[in-house]
Amino acid sequence: MSKTALIVIDMINTYDHKDADQLIRSAEPVVPVLTDLLGRARGRGVPVIYVNDNFGEWRSHHGELLERALATPHAHLVQPVKPDADSLFVLKARHSIFFETPLHYLLQQQGIDRLVLTGQVTEQCVLYSALDAHIRHFDVIVPQDAVAHIHEDLAQAALRMMERNMGARVCESRELWV
Amino acid sequence: MSKTALIVIDMINTYDHKDADQLIRSAEPVVPVLTDLLGRARGRGVPVIYVNDNFGEWRSHHGELLERALATPHAHLVQPVKPDADSLFVLKARHSIFFETPLHYLLQQQGIDRLVLTGQVTEQCVLYSALDAHIRHFDVIVPQDAVAHIHEDLAQAALRMMERNMGARVCESRELWV
Amino acid sequence: MSKTALIVIDMINTYDHKDADQLIRSAEPVVPVLTDLLGRARGRGVPVIYVNDNFGEWRSHHGELLERALATPHAHLVQPVKPDADSLFVLKARHSIFFETPLHYLLQQQGIDRLVLTGQVTEQCVLYSALDAHIRHFDVIVPQDAVAHIHEDLAQAALRMMERNMGARVCESRELWV
Amino acid sequence: MSKTALIVIDMINTYDHKDADQLIRSAEPVVPVLTDLLGRARGRGVPVIYVNDNFGEWRSHHGELLERALATPHAHLVQPVKPDADSLFVLKARHSIFFETPLHYLLQQQGIDRLVLTGQVTEQCVLYSALDAHIRHFDVIVPQDAVAHIHEDLAQAALRMMERNMGARVCESRELWV
Repeated sequence: MSKTALIVIDMINTYDHKDADQLIRSAEPVVPVLTDLLGRARGRGVPVIYVNDNFGEWRSHHGELLERALATPHAHLVQPVKPDADSLFVLKARHSIFFETPLHYLLQQQGIDRLVLTGQVTEQCVLYSALDAHIRHFDVIVPQDAVAHIHEDLAQAALRMMERNMGARVCESRELWV
Repeated sequence: MSKTALIVIDMINTYDHKDADQLIRSAEPVVPVLTDLLGRARGRGVPVIYVNDNFGEWRSHHGELLERALATPHAHLVQPVKPDADSLFVLKARHSIFFETPLHYLLQQQGIDRLVLTGQVTEQCVLYSALDAHIRHFDVIVPQDAVAHIHEDLAQAALRMMERNMGARVCESRELWV
Repeated sequence: MSKTALIVIDMINTYDHKDADQLIRSAEPVVPVLTDLLGRARGRGVPVIYVNDNFGEWRSHHGELLERALATPHAHLVQPVKPDADSLFVLKARHSIFFETPLHYLLQQQGIDRLVLTGQVTEQCVLYSALDAHIRHFDVIVPQDAVAHIHEDLAQAALRMMERNMGARVCESRELWV
Repeated sequence: MSKTALIVIDMINTYDHKDADQLIRSAEPVVPVLTDLLGRARGRGVPVIYVNDNFGEWRSHHGELLERALATPHAHLVQPVKPDADSLFVLKARHSIFFETPLHYLLQQQGIDRLVLTGQVTEQCVLYSALDAHIRHFDVIVPQDAVAHIHEDLAQAALRMMERNMGARVCESRELWV
């Protein structure tokens, strides 16, 4: 039988980078959707794994990343979707959730073989992570209202690529854990 | 100083897979362009590295893959762009040219830090390879008339992703080694 | 249920490197033992996978490596243990059988979870491969009379390391496939 | 010119695992030597990178690991060698400091090409890390009085393997940053 994890990508964010305005516009409707999805997943005992960029802060840990993100004017995009005491946390340095991180090892240890990918950026980290998950033979589900983008056109293409070429199921959040 | 290699992806192909008809239509104009590019690169002493799927044939080697591809009705798409005696050859099992192959090691050994990516499929292996090259800090150049696609819309999006998000230079073949 | 493969490491060899004399002395009694073991494994339908260094020959394939090895004065160490028509073949560039090779992918595709490691050099590639197999959660068996060494003292220590720290079973070849 | 980092492996430890008694006996004389070495490295501005097992605690971060280690009866083995405010920190899940961690990426970003390996266990993580560093073409230095072991015989063999087969320089701590 298949075991699923909910993956939350790069939502612990200070939103002070280039293109942040575009990303914020897309993230705002995503946050309440993801909040609901997190609630349903937690209610079912589904493991929730945050995989987040360390933003080059090799001295920091996830508690500090979270504090910093909550201290910005964009805290309302972070607070509702933050990790709880049961959440697992993996720091990444760059792009894909699998690139030079222990995520693959963690998933194998926990017998997880299906990933629901949420967070940002659809046409970047989410796309790259879907590819790396597919290459490693994980089943991939992407609720398209729970991922945020910078460029709408590339995000749409990314979702089509995941569906056509990476065997992903693209769906709506309300279809999951109902 | 930068050292460049010309990478030829998955052009040793029997074209008998799903979607082959669409790919062949796109590959036909690519083959003469790539043939010229190969000629110019070889004339300048640029290393040419073929990275090719093994199509699940773990008993085969690249000589056999080539023989098989030359025995199909699509040999005219293979013959002009086949390896010569100086070409290097790396077999891959899946998707990206870097995934579980010795390519990264080979490039480091030869001091190569810039890759010209050619071949197929633009919105699949070429895109994934551009990403994996960018993550590993290689400079990437993609001559857009030397890559072939299955889906035109996804190919265009893939080229935009490479340019915007992977720092790639997308150009025309005639701009290279002139 | 567990599925086992017999792995033959670096036995396609010209024996013209540094320390070759010491290695040859150790390989001579190993070759007939390995020949018998190969026979029994093949008789039972056990997959046999050769993983062999390419010796920096990025233009070559395994057929050429074999031809070259059979053309040396040490052909008697190669001929009896060479691949047959059913053998699988993976080229490696360096050290471990897993480092930047598609072996892990091949093993997963074939559902193999237990490896019998044979070949050379006990305290180098065999040790490193046992470690990389253990990290990836494969069961490892090392028949100690089917592996050859350069330095006796390091080989003995390597076998103890595999047993104590890598969960390997060190045994005699006659215990396998009897 | 070469840039060096001092790597401290698995010294943030609760020493409550199997074989801890043997390890403690070996770690006790190592701690003051490593404390001095850390002092000299910090005085010269050498980057100090702690790479530490997460002990399966995927919810924890390095601050919590440190707190837990300082709360044990073995705090005297941890306190003198703990990270300072400038130390970098990489969590690992298993064995080698490179296996599924962002260390390689961090080292490349900082232009570091030479590693001084210290900590524990000589014949396990230190050995495996020396191998993985050598495969990736880093220069490796191992001050033998700044590494602790469980099994003396295997530790001696491990140091010989690093020297003979992994191109490592095995030395005394007093030779470094004098």
